[in-house]
This record gives sequence, structure tokens and C-alpha cells, in this order.
Amino acid sequence: MVPHLVTALIGPINELEQRILESMPAIERWFRLEWMEHTPPFYTSVDVRNAGYKLAPVDTNLFPGGFNNLTDEMLPLAVQAAMAAIEKICPEARNLLLVPERHTRNMFYLMNVQRLVRIFTNAGLNVRLGTLDEAITEPTPIELPDGSSLTLEPLLRSQRRLGLKNFDPCTILLNNDLSAGIPKVLEGLHEQYLLPPLHAGWAVRRKTRHFEAYEEVAKKFAKLLGMDPWLINPMYAHCGEVDWQAGTGLECVQTQVDALLTKIRRKHKEYGIGEKPFVVVKADNGTYGMGIMTVRDAKDLDEVNRRTRNKMDVVKDGQRVTQVIIQEGVPTYERVNEAVAEPVVYMIDRYVVGGFYRVHAERGIDENLNAPGASFVPLAFEKSNQLPRPGEKPGVSAPNRFYMYGVIGRLAMLAAAYELEATDPNAETYD
Amino acid sequence: MVPHLVTALIGPINELEQRILESMPAIERWFRLEWMEHTPPFYTSVDVRNAGYKLAPVDTNLFPGGFNNLTDEMLPLAVQAAMAAIEKICPEARNLLLVPERHTRNMFYLMNVQRLVRIFTNAGLNVRLGTLDEAITEPTPIELPDGSSLTLEPLLRSQRRLGLKNFDPCTILLNNDLSAGIPKVLEGLHEQYLLPPLHAGWAVRRKTRHFEAYEEVAKKFAKLLGMDPWLINPMYAHCGEVDWQAGTGLECVQTQVDALLTKIRRKHKEYGIGEKPFVVVKADNGTYGMGIMTVRDAKDLDEVNRRTRNKMDVVKDGQRVTQVIIQEGVPTYERVNEAVAEPVVYMIDRYVVGGFYRVHAERGIDENLNAPGASFVPLAFEKSNQLPRPGEKPGVSAPNRFYMYGVIGRLAMLAAAYELEATDPNAETYD
Repeated sequence: MVPHLVTALIGPINELEQRILESMPAIERWFRLEWMEHTPPFYTSVDVRNAGYKLAPVDTNLFPGGFNNLTDEMLPLAVQAAMAAIEKICPEARNLLLVPERHTRNMFYLMNVQRLVRIFTNAGLNVRLGTLDEAITEPTPIELPDGSSLTLEPLLRSQRRLGLKNFDPCTILLNNDLSAGIPKVLEGLHEQYLLPPLHAGWAVRRKTRHFEAYEEVAKKFAKLLGMDPWLINPMYAHCGEVDWQAGTGLECVQTQVDALLTKIRRKHKEYGIGEKPFVVVKADNGTYGMGIMTVRDAKDLDEVNRRTRNKMDVVKDGQRVTQVIIQEGVPTYERVNEAVAEPVVYMIDRYVVGGFYRVHAERGIDENLNAPGASFVPLAFEKSNQLPRPGEKPGVSAPNRFYMYGVIGRLAMLAAAYELEATDPNAETYD
Repeated sequence: MVPHLVTALIGPINELEQRILESMPAIERWFRLEWMEHTPPFYTSVDVRNAGYKLAPVDTNLFPGGFNNLTDEMLPLAVQAAMAAIEKICPEARNLLLVPERHTRNMFYLMNVQRLVRIFTNAGLNVRLGTLDEAITEPTPIELPDGSSLTLEPLLRSQRRLGLKNFDPCTILLNNDLSAGIPKVLEGLHEQYLLPPLHAGWAVRRKTRHFEAYEEVAKKFAKLLGMDPWLINPMYAHCGEVDWQAGTGLECVQTQVDALLTKIRRKHKEYGIGEKPFVVVKADNGTYGMGIMTVRDAKDLDEVNRRTRNKMDVVKDGQRVTQVIIQEGVPTYERVNEAVAEPVVYMIDRYVVGGFYRVHAERGIDENLNAPGASFVPLAFEKSNQLPRPGEKPGVSAPNRFYMYGVIGRLAMLAAAYELEATDPNAETYD
């Protein structure tokens, strides 16, 4: 049942695990106080990388797929968290309209949608699916591999509300990251709760802004624990006007890569880390593991071949990439059955509800694992999954490790809360 | 792992299970709306009896012991619910003072205390134990069977606050049901949260008032589902001035027993139930399964022997019994490994966090199982414990059954919320 986990956890991270466990009440209180001031995103998944010497989030998804990869044992936690979320947003709600991604033939994705339907049905809502796919003009059942089925229905928009035929929801839950832009049908809905908000979609969101907010969060948290924020914060830089096809704007990328590699080298020296530094260049608005390249030397960018240019130029839903984030590469030393793995932490409202390892047998420790060929191993432990056990040796207790991952996941979620506040087009300002 | 459950679920309850499952969104919404108006008790356990033709709570405990009987798998749910509770009450809290029962040699009870410490520590609080036992004048460690230990400390009372040496809590959590009366040390604490409130203790509480509130809740709920409230509501009567030793006031008990048996017979006839009616006479302020007798005929009370008189006269902590509740007997048809069993549902805040079967091999289906010799089998099911699965045949799906028990448990918890509002000495009235 429980996958064999191999880790090379050494030095600082064991100290970090120890310190995080010892500081659990202070950490939980700190989160409680932060959530009094900041509203958590409705749901979040965070890719975490454990380098042994450093533990950091590398991607924060505000429209998480993959709920089907969580264990069944974690479902009650997800349901309870969903109940808490609904209570706050719209306690009188009867109906929830879920708007999924358009790709209706990806069975893995549809299993995720089915799992979300199950979670919110169990939380006490009538859940129906409204699709942005305009080819669907009547209720369309889709058979799933497990023998069950989902029905996609066309959206019905009135001047003020969005719903389905005979279905007027209080809350509209997006599981579509809006990479293709904000559809007109979702605009101007002021009477209903639209969650996450439109500006959380990739039509508006930028990774750079997220990691800017994360840096702020990491600094606060590191101060609480009396440690160097670098241990949990991936350094980054930004280039704003890159044209991969025309080959313009690449000087900025080269300069920033070089500067960032130098900064990493300095940190490695400070901590006596033998690892060769690398950076990851990512589309600033990218998702689905698209538009990502690993760079070990700025010179490598002198000659970017056509294949890489194409890869970097266009991401999900044909969106062009002109802005990039250059992020400190954090290798992952987690292994599941000898394949490279990275933990992914799932949250609903402010609660960690589960996680899994994304595993890729053909990828290296310094590569993006979110790619075809990846598989998923639920983070399930022998007993009482995510409860830490004080007193156990650091680095050997899976529950303790998962607690630490849950803390890092929540830090990234808090950063997303900061980020969404800063980018809210309807925010009231008090200048 | 999973105990073999045998049930004789027939007729109305299968219909009830079906209706409860079909109405899940309406039921959850109804609870959400009730919790907007009424504050749930901090934690609650409810003894439920499933007679096949009727499903009803028979006892609601506002200072639950037995958390150690829940499975480890349910701990994360309890922790998450505790986090939600703390967030609402005292988000800035660092410290929780837990005041347990005095019986410091009952290892089963102490394991419950240890489990509570673990839950609230994991929810992010520094938890320490303050005892009402005045014999304890300095921190006293107690070894537990599992090799761990607990430390009981003497309470330190200032004029306005209660704490321990170098420990000033925001919240004081009672796990002591105050059967022995309200200790002076707990009175007049207006600066701290004292939970549950003093009037939830057995020094003030009466079962009659609870079941009066439950009747109101059951009627509302039955209306929502369009069913006879009797299917979930045990009928009851009350006698106020009984002296078991002197033998006075027993006429009232006899008259009420007779009248209640007649009412039950009428209901049995209406539903074609072959079962022989019985009632249970209980101390109105009793707990710990003390002060309880089963009566099948009012004539049986003509001759109450000395042993029964002694049993009925004095309950926990030497408290005298002069008021009794006469409750419709609900037989339990649940069996675990052929022994008679009744489910007990555990809740923290508004959330069901687990449950177990109380099992007693030497007791009958119409007897109190909360007695020496009882054992406990966690309610753990093969998969995703308390999530119902719509579409499965009623009466055969353990998760569906547990969902139904969780609904009944929450109805009793809601009744306790009504009850505590009605008996609150500090309630503001708007006449």
C-alpha cells in the first residue's frame, strides 16, 4: 500500500523539520492570525521540491486538477474542509455550478472532475457541470473508465446570473484556469460568488507576482522560526519582453540567468552545498508543465534550437509567452520506487486535505516532472496520515515530513492570498 | 480490520436511510442554516440505538470521554475540526488548559485525555492539564500503558483568571462533567473562554430538558424529510420527586411508565411492530451509565429490591437522584461478532469526526450497554469511512449507515445547542 520512499535528507532540512515540529503551536497560531487578515483561495495545490538542503514550492495552482490522485482515506477531510468553506461563503446555498476545463476527452482530468463533484455533493450541495465548450448545446453524458458518468450541460447566462436550465447556483466554482482568456459569459457576475475570482486565472495571473508575494511570506515565516528564508524560498528574476520566435529579448534572459546562478553559487558556498546550480526558465503565465526549460549555464541560451523556441513560445490554449520567470532550480531528492518524485500538496480553504507524489521515471532530479509519462502515488502513510509525531527522529517519519510539506504548501497558499489581494481589480483602496 | 457487523435492518429504517441519502444536500443545508442561528457545543458524543424500525439517540454527552476509541485514521478529521473550533473561539490562542475528570487511576480515561491532548496540540495549541484534585499540589507525571505519560498540574486561580504556573490560557476546556457540583475555582471566569459552559455540567443539566429540545429538533427535521418524527424520536416522561430509599414518589414513576408503555404500544400497532415495548428509567442528571433500569411492566415497580434502590438512588460522584426521565426503550439490533452493540457518534464543533460501537456480550438488546464489561470497536470502514455512497442498496452499505448515524448524532448535538441556550444563566432576554 505505502510506496517505498527514498530520500537523501541531509543537514539543514532535518534541522528545519525539527524546528517546524517544535514550533507547531506557534506556526499554527501564525497561520490562524494570517487567515484573519487574508482570505485563502478556495482551493490550491502546490508542487513542492525537497532538495535536502532546501525545501521550496515551485508552482502554485489555483484551479487544481488531480483530486482523483488523493487517497479515498483523505476524502472525509476534503469534505469537511469544503463544508467549512461553503459555510463561510454561502451557507444558504443549495446549488453549486462547477465549470471544468474544456478538454472533455482527457479521462484523467474527468476523473478529477468526478472527485470534485463527489466532494461537494458530500458537503451538501447539488452539483452540476456547466461547460465553456460551445459545441455542447444540450446535456451530454460522458462515460468514465470506472463505469460512472458525468453530464456536461450548456451554460445559460442571463443579464445578471449564470446557471443551467432549471439550475440557479449561489456559487460558481471554476476548475478552468482561464489560460484561453476570460470568457464573456463569466464577466459581470456580481450577484453570485465566482470562485476563484477571474483574476486568479492565467489570463491575468503571473508567476513572478506569486513568487514576489511568496518571498514576503517566506521572510515573515523565517523570522518567526529564526532561520534563513532562503531555506524555503526559491530566488527568481523576471524578463518582460521576450520573443522566442524572433529571438529578441533573450539578452535579458541571459543576463538574469547569469546573475541568478551567481547568487545561487554564493548561497551554496555559504552552506557548503556541492550541488551544481541551475535555473528554470518558465512562461510567467504558463501552466500544465508547458513552457519550461532547465538552464545550467547562461551560454546555453546562445543557441536555442527551434524545438525549444516552439516549446517556450506557446503554452496552454495557444497563449503566447513574452514574459518569463527565471527561478532558482531546486532539485528533488525524493524517490518513489527509484523514480524521481516531487510532493504535491492539496488544500481546500485553509486546510491541507491530502497530497501525492508526482513521479517520473525518465526525468532527472533537476527537471520538470509535470510532463507526459508522469504517474501519481498518493501520499498515504501507514497511520493517521498527516499528523506529525513529535519526538521521532527527523527525516525518517513520513507523517512528520508530510506535516512539513503541508506547512510549505500553506505558505504558498498564503502567498496566493496576498497575490490575489494585490491584483484584485475591484479592491478598495484607502489612499 | 473491519469488524463483522450484523444488522436486522428492516422496513422503515431502510426507507429512512434511503430518504436521508437522497436528501443529503437538503439535510446539510438545513444544518448549515441551524448553525447560523445556534452555536454547537464544543464537543459532543451521542449514543445511538438502531432498532430496525426506529433510530434514535438515547444519551448525549457534552464532556465526551472515549476519544481513544476512535481510529487513528479519524484523527486528522478531529484535528481539522478542532482547528475550525479554535479559529472561531480564540484565533490568537497559544495555550489551552484542559481540565480532566479526577479519577487519575482509570487508564482508559487517561488514554482519552492523552488523545485530546494530541488533537489540540496538532491543532496548534500548547496544551497542559490542570486538575480539580486538590491532593495534587505539584506537577505530577502519570505513566500510561503505551509508555507515554501525562502531567497533571495544580490549578492556579487569580481573581479574574484560571491557569497553571507560568501558563495563562485563552481557553479552558472541561473534560469533567461537573457531576460533583460546580467547583468554586471555575466560577466567575469572565475573561477566558470556559468550554463547555458550566451549565452544561450535570450539576445543572437534566436529561428531560435535552429530550424536550430533541423533540423540537426531531419535529423540524421530520418535517423537512416528510416523515413521522417518532421514527427518530424516543418518547419520554418525567417525575420530579422520587426518593428511592424512602420509596416515596414511585407512584408518579409507575403512572408514567404505564402511560408511556401504552403510547409505545399504539405506535407499534400503527407500524405493525411485533416488538414488546419497554421503557428505561434513568436519573435525570445521571451519567456514566449509572442510575438506569429497564422496565417492561409498571407492576414491576411494585417491588423494587434494595439493590435496585441503591443503584437508582446515587449516581456518579455521590449525587442523589430525585428526578428521573422515563424514556421509550429503543432496542439495538446492531451486532458486532454476535455481541449486542450500539453506535456512539463523536463530534467536534459541528463536524462528525468518528465513532465506535459500544459492545457488550453479556447484555440484552433492551439493556444499557454502558456498564463494566463493555468493549469498544472503532467504526472504521474499508474505504472513505463516513462518506455516503448514493446508489447503494439501503441497509448493506456501512458508509451509508454511518452517514445516517452522523445525521442523528448531529440532531442530538443541535438539541444540546437549543438546550444550552434555554438554560444559559447569562442569556440576554428580549422581552
